[in-house]
Amino acid sequence: METFGTLGERGLIERIRATARPPPPPGRLDDDAVDVAGVIACVDSVTFERHMPPGMSYGEFGWMAAAASLSDLAAMGARPTGILAAMLLPPGMPVGDVLDIVGGMDRCAESCGTHLYGGDTKPGAGSVSVTALGDMENREPMARSGAREGDAVAVTGPLGGPAAGFECLRNGWDPVGGLKDAVASLYSPVPRIDWGVLLSGSGAVTSCIDLSDGLATAANAVCDASGVGMLFEASFLPEGPGVAVASGRLGVPAAELMTSFGGEYELMFTFPRERLENIHSSGVPFHVVGYVDGGDGARLSLDGEERRLEHGRY
Amino acid sequence: METFGTLGERGLIERIRATARPPPPPGRLDDDAVDVAGVIACVDSVTFERHMPPGMSYGEFGWMAAAASLSDLAAMGARPTGILAAMLLPPGMPVGDVLDIVGGMDRCAESCGTHLYGGDTKPGAGSVSVTALGDMENREPMARSGAREGDAVAVTGPLGGPAAGFECLRNGWDPVGGLKDAVASLYSPVPRIDWGVLLSGSGAVTSCIDLSDGLATAANAVCDASGVGMLFEASFLPEGPGVAVASGRLGVPAAELMTSFGGEYELMFTFPRERLENIHSSGVPFHVVGYVDGGDGARLSLDGEERRLEHGRY
Repeated sequence: METFGTLGERGLIERIRATARPPPPPGRLDDDAVDVAGVIACVDSVTFERHMPPGMSYGEFGWMAAAASLSDLAAMGARPTGILAAMLLPPGMPVGDVLDIVGGMDRCAESCGTHLYGGDTKPGAGSVSVTALGDMENREPMARSGAREGDAVAVTGPLGGPAAGFECLRNGWDPVGGLKDAVASLYSPVPRIDWGVLLSGSGAVTSCIDLSDGLATAANAVCDASGVGMLFEASFLPEGPGVAVASGRLGVPAAELMTSFGGEYELMFTFPRERLENIHSSGVPFHVVGYVDGGDGARLSLDGEERRLEHGRY
Repeated sequence: METFGTLGERGLIERIRATARPPPPPGRLDDDAVDVAGVIACVDSVTFERHMPPGMSYGEFGWMAAAASLSDLAAMGARPTGILAAMLLPPGMPVGDVLDIVGGMDRCAESCGTHLYGGDTKPGAGSVSVTALGDMENREPMARSGAREGDAVAVTGPLGGPAAGFECLRNGWDPVGGLKDAVASLYSPVPRIDWGVLLSGSGAVTSCIDLSDGLATAANAVCDASGVGMLFEASFLPEGPGVAVASGRLGVPAAELMTSFGGEYELMFTFPRERLENIHSSGVPFHVVGYVDGGDGARLSLDGEERRLEHGRY
């Protein structure tokens, strides 16, 4: 029988779209940030079981829970106006730990210029679903669906740090070299709110997405939504802290750590090459890492060989 | 050690309020509907384990999940503009069951004049957290904190049906007499959106709350927030379907079924007695069931004896 597990999260949202009533435009039924009567809104869940690596504190878990949703607003270019949290927590959980989760969400909200407004707490297995609300402030929202053949593809910062950090924790490595920073990037991801606002304000961006599911998954999502392909050049990918060390120890190409893992919070965006100056003058740091073409989904050129970028491991 | 379970949900929100940054007014940090930069928003969670009585379908569970949040908007007097759902579901769950949950949420949203816009689905133990967004349309929001000594207390409809329905299912009774309607009221609660809109528009309501946690818990919440007491007259409480039968079979007073159980979706509100005509002309059906006084919390007068209404069983 077809189950949620076999269909997967992306497959499920397609099915839901096919059966539920479509909301009035410009709203659309999606697992991304959506426009609800002029309010940009999105929700994302994290669970103790799947999203709490060894050694992560409850405060860091709370921060990450808020960051996951706020990052979806960033990808659209919205300015956050507030967050709400639905917590399902084991009844035996010490109150101090619960307050640490809330404190982490609050600090992340503060770092994004906004506040925790409320929520709901019920007994459960250990999860936090954060709803983030935002405002486009009269800018045009950036979608996943606007990438066009010939566009350049860029990312706002180095990749692979969270993957290297995760491998460091999982394998019990000493956090030497860049691995300490790698673990920090896994624990305290920073939603790129200001950069999203600047990119949407530039008027030059044709599509944008955050990398919380990893570059491969994100790139394929944009390819699907835009009906295009994308070719990345491995040597152009900016390498995050600890990637070289982790790559060597694991015996896997650095490019795999940079493309196949989640937990990244940089933005990936596309723009017509002739608009490069607009992107430069926006003040957002970026690295061009590939271009949009008519090929089949997202591919990586590595040592002169082209291979499909498959959906990530996480 | 003090845990989430020993402190309880109401106690926890007090602690959170004491530690997290307060949002800018008129926003406030609460587990009720809140004002987020002019948008009324709330989130509520239901779980398979705690909120899915025997025989409830996944479609009904989805309806109930949406109703729980939409009812919080109703209590404030907001018009819903959209809902989002965070689902945590067992990977082995058949896709058809997942779509049934979504369909139930969608139908409930439709019954309230709004749409499902999006959400997130992750592997988990089985829960749905629905965020509802709404608009006051220039009316003043109804709060829990405005009840004043001398106000009348009213409810919008009969009480105890969901409790009788739950007891019917739990005890395996034949759904005779009113029990069939009682079970239906448990399975498909109707958020009182239009009545909330009309009540807030009347300008005569001093406080309002929904009864999803039961009359006793709701009344005590209003007493706490308003710094008042409330005396209910048992013989005034409008009796829901199946209450007489269930009361007789269980050997408990009907008033207990009508006050100590949750799953009700009627509204309870207070108003100055001299404004009775405004409430009448609003067109909202109501029953006056007591009055606000300076006593200690919510109490029930039953057979000439006054007793505390304790927080409900659910």
